[in-house]
Amino acid sequence: MQPGQRLRATLEFLLYDWLDAPGLASRERFADHSRDTFDAVLETCERIAREKYAPFNRLVDTEEPRFDGERVILPAATHAAHQAYADSGMLAAAQDHALGGMQLPFTVEAAANSFFALGSVSINTAMLTVGNANLLMAHGSPVQQRVFAHPEFSGRWAGTMCLSEPHAGSSLGDITTRAEPDGEDYASDPLGPRYRLRGHKMWISAGDHELTENIVHLVLAKIPDAGGKLPAGVKGISLFIVPKKLVDPEGRLTGERNDVALAGLNHKLGWRGTTNTLLNFGEGRYPVRSQPGAVGYRVGQPGQGLQCMFHMMNEARIGVGMAATLLGLAGYYASLDYARSRPQGRPAGGKQAEQAPVPIMEHADVKRMLLAQKSYGEGALALALYCARLVDEQHTGDAASADEARLLLELLTPIAKSWPSEWCLEANSLAIQVHGGYGYTRDFPVEQYWRDNRLNMIHEGTHGIQAADLLGRKVRMAGGRAMQVLARRIEATASAFAADGPWAGEARALGQAWGELQEAASSAWQGEDARRALANAVPFMQAFGHTVVAWIWLDLVRVIGDAPRSPGCAGRLAAARFFFRYELPRIGAWLAVVRAQDMTCADLPPEAF
Amino acid sequence: MQPGQRLRATLEFLLYDWLDAPGLASRERFADHSRDTFDAVLETCERIAREKYAPFNRLVDTEEPRFDGERVILPAATHAAHQAYADSGMLAAAQDHALGGMQLPFTVEAAANSFFALGSVSINTAMLTVGNANLLMAHGSPVQQRVFAHPEFSGRWAGTMCLSEPHAGSSLGDITTRAEPDGEDYASDPLGPRYRLRGHKMWISAGDHELTENIVHLVLAKIPDAGGKLPAGVKGISLFIVPKKLVDPEGRLTGERNDVALAGLNHKLGWRGTTNTLLNFGEGRYPVRSQPGAVGYRVGQPGQGLQCMFHMMNEARIGVGMAATLLGLAGYYASLDYARSRPQGRPAGGKQAEQAPVPIMEHADVKRMLLAQKSYGEGALALALYCARLVDEQHTGDAASADEARLLLELLTPIAKSWPSEWCLEANSLAIQVHGGYGYTRDFPVEQYWRDNRLNMIHEGTHGIQAADLLGRKVRMAGGRAMQVLARRIEATASAFAADGPWAGEARALGQAWGELQEAASSAWQGEDARRALANAVPFMQAFGHTVVAWIWLDLVRVIGDAPRSPGCAGRLAAARFFFRYELPRIGAWLAVVRAQDMTCADLPPEAF
Repeated sequence: MQPGQRLRATLEFLLYDWLDAPGLASRERFADHSRDTFDAVLETCERIAREKYAPFNRLVDTEEPRFDGERVILPAATHAAHQAYADSGMLAAAQDHALGGMQLPFTVEAAANSFFALGSVSINTAMLTVGNANLLMAHGSPVQQRVFAHPEFSGRWAGTMCLSEPHAGSSLGDITTRAEPDGEDYASDPLGPRYRLRGHKMWISAGDHELTENIVHLVLAKIPDAGGKLPAGVKGISLFIVPKKLVDPEGRLTGERNDVALAGLNHKLGWRGTTNTLLNFGEGRYPVRSQPGAVGYRVGQPGQGLQCMFHMMNEARIGVGMAATLLGLAGYYASLDYARSRPQGRPAGGKQAEQAPVPIMEHADVKRMLLAQKSYGEGALALALYCARLVDEQHTGDAASADEARLLLELLTPIAKSWPSEWCLEANSLAIQVHGGYGYTRDFPVEQYWRDNRLNMIHEGTHGIQAADLLGRKVRMAGGRAMQVLARRIEATASAFAADGPWAGEARALGQAWGELQEAASSAWQGEDARRALANAVPFMQAFGHTVVAWIWLDLVRVIGDAPRSPGCAGRLAAARFFFRYELPRIGAWLAVVRAQDMTCADLPPEAF
Repeated sequence: MQPGQRLRATLEFLLYDWLDAPGLASRERFADHSRDTFDAVLETCERIAREKYAPFNRLVDTEEPRFDGERVILPAATHAAHQAYADSGMLAAAQDHALGGMQLPFTVEAAANSFFALGSVSINTAMLTVGNANLLMAHGSPVQQRVFAHPEFSGRWAGTMCLSEPHAGSSLGDITTRAEPDGEDYASDPLGPRYRLRGHKMWISAGDHELTENIVHLVLAKIPDAGGKLPAGVKGISLFIVPKKLVDPEGRLTGERNDVALAGLNHKLGWRGTTNTLLNFGEGRYPVRSQPGAVGYRVGQPGQGLQCMFHMMNEARIGVGMAATLLGLAGYYASLDYARSRPQGRPAGGKQAEQAPVPIMEHADVKRMLLAQKSYGEGALALALYCARLVDEQHTGDAASADEARLLLELLTPIAKSWPSEWCLEANSLAIQVHGGYGYTRDFPVEQYWRDNRLNMIHEGTHGIQAADLLGRKVRMAGGRAMQVLARRIEATASAFAADGPWAGEARALGQAWGELQEAASSAWQGEDARRALANAVPFMQAFGHTVVAWIWLDLVRVIGDAPRSPGCAGRLAAARFFFRYELPRIGAWLAVVRAQDMTCADLPPEAF
């Protein structure tokens, strides 16, 4: 079976049997939709991904982006893939009909986009463009929306997010890019308050290319006070639109470059289909009206930049989790095909020499490696679509339900980002292992999946940042209300199983895991000392993630029931069983150090390492 | 501090404070040695590795081996490194003085070789050459030793091991390379019974190159019966010396090529300093005396090939563990340097904006990632040297002690190979994580360590093969005697700690872990059904490995005592503490499925995946 068809079967189960996506059509915004329209979108995306993405995944790895001093050169296949994606209308899928959009539920949009990540995760930078435009739709002025966001939805322009600087990655409060009012009339520009920006931005994905006629950079910078001093910390950060090429208030290119220069391409371990860049803003390479300084238009109020940017960052975090997930599934499908076709050895306990070799699929340890991949990849996919469904609820549910969805989404975002990044990477390592020596060669795709996936624990907030967000903020926010919402949902799932049924043990194990998790969170915060509480934030997040994914798996079992209708459902039940037996028990080791406020690491003096 | 100096401090602690390497000088074979001579060897190797290996580690990654149709082209640096290594005398370090060797204990040889793996793991293929020559010293005829092994010890010739075939990797019983007697007089060749070999050998490391004037292939093949049929299974395997270039009985090159042709170079994810090849034996590209068929000289008796080869495979397995270990330590040292020099963020709980950023070394989660690397890398190094010390005991101890050492070494070999392969790979991933985005670029060395290290769970017997060997054979061999030996040593370590002392909890935890491990092994074999017993062999091996490394760490604590003399020893105590608190508790999850004979994976029908 083609990987896309395999994925589609899983998506259909999740969307239709589990999340009741067609039920969304009863809401006014989605009234034109039905399972038929959803299926049509899935089918189109599967086809484009199969034709324009998957065949070029190795190519974009070996033909890394180059800079000839003027232009960034990408393979022709990347241009074709971009065009096909734009032509599909997916960039505007979630937008209003009035804007040329489909008013597609985000749940379905996310599902449909997963085909592209499966085909070639790094060829596709649409997530950035859509996220950028969505931010402008939420925080930009009407003119900014029309001039900058609309061409992004049509695919004519692309978008970036410019946060990090060479000296300031995780610590955005320390950025030093300056934004100074551009002339006396700076406040009256129709495109928004006009500034000149100067500074360096690092790790900018899709920061320069020729895929589109313009690039809309969303840039965090600081506005100096009257004494020329930059305000300290994250509260001093503002947000600016800085187009690569200047535009007039009608959105037409003026023919002038803005003062944004590509300082260099980063040479990465993987994810090579996307440029990653160091950009110099306002160094004078392309002076505007004879003056250095990149022209930027403020979005929102001064000092509100990070808050606005979080709109895009949260989307990006879920997107990163999705990318990690689809890489995990890509490796799973590849190793499954290999395991079915590669004869080697005999089953344990049989007569060795007299029998013909069996496909390695028959060996228990190979099955273990495949089932682990399945439980990671499909569990992560279900979690991601669950989160996508929360987005739809937040936007179209009634007030109480929307508020609950918002809280739960905030709590689950660090998990949706971190968990697939860690465990679908592990899945890719297992995919290599299933291939044996062949998996270590570049003749098979799995080593690339593994390299590509290693990025996901780093970008859009490292594992450590996600963990501090989870245990330092999300677990305690709104007086613990988000945790209460999650507790109720977990309880609802567990209580759907009969106490003497075949899943009673798993239901009990889930309840117990959740109890241990809550207890560990309380113990960690005993004494209200952030240093002690957060010393083991990552092990806490790992345990939280495993518990959440166990809950998701059990909820899938709930809808399948005891009598699976198909081999696919039998496989899902096995993956759920696997997760509860082989994976969930890991949380004991993680939570022990959280509960104990173990300071072995935190207290060790640097010179002892 | 230079990485080599850091490593040397750890090696000196292990050799002199823990393993009492100088005490070996009281044995006749090592009578000329002392701590002074050991130090001189360590110093020489550290220097050569620093000058000739480390500076070229990236180069051998980017300038992959090429084949111009006639010759394999390697960077000049690889030739220089090979020459410097040969000139150092290390190839013959363990050999008799009469052979120009140093009669160095293997413990010290292994320690000294670790500098080269730290500098550039893949530039160095000496392990293969020495292992090949050692096998000939154990199983070859006197002429074979003089003609083939001696030039390997001097560095004039190199060696390989040719086991796998394209269709037979883990399953050596299925090889189809044929060896047929070469003429009427085949049995009377002074170089050994002469055969003609025909077949394909895959994954042959250092299978072709111009580093040496000749290459000695040790090749597994089958001798057909009278009807021309190859004997089935591993019992039909014999071993042959197949030189790349033909030699006379005096060991002089005759000027003729043997019929061994390079069919292709494998293009790998990492470990690119070493060629990895597909070799065609006897396809007629280089006919000998006008006939196709590679000329080979049998070593040992027909059907004894695999048994002989195990001599080399066991050495190679420990060598693979060492390589994985040193890659782990290389990443640890690199990320330690980065963490000390990279300012970013403020400690949790402090006032954020007003303070200057601190080195990331100050953050608890970065310390956690560093301490994990230290506990994996230094724990693995200690285990490897412990195994090396067992080799010396086996060869120079009294009969009882030698026998005990042999048994323990057999039991620990799958751990010494598999544990570093898995956990020092994880260490490398953590080293990337400490570097953040920079770690994902090729401007820093850690991504290469991670790629290089991924090989080690695959070659010289995959993780699955090691696990089947451990639980299927080693745990039960000799009526469980090897387990009894290990149990006594673990008990001796644990009982060295006072029941009310600061390490009492760890000592108890170790005893408990060992008890759980034994119980799990018994439960797995309940019913004597190999299929059920081995269904979870890998989780068993993971738990076994963590328990053994916990024991090793506690034994290091034993020699340090409660009052560490130096920051180095304080760090070792912290790493030991870390291992017991963060790592050892993981065994619970692994052993639960072993104990339960969990068949979730083994019983799942292939179509459900």
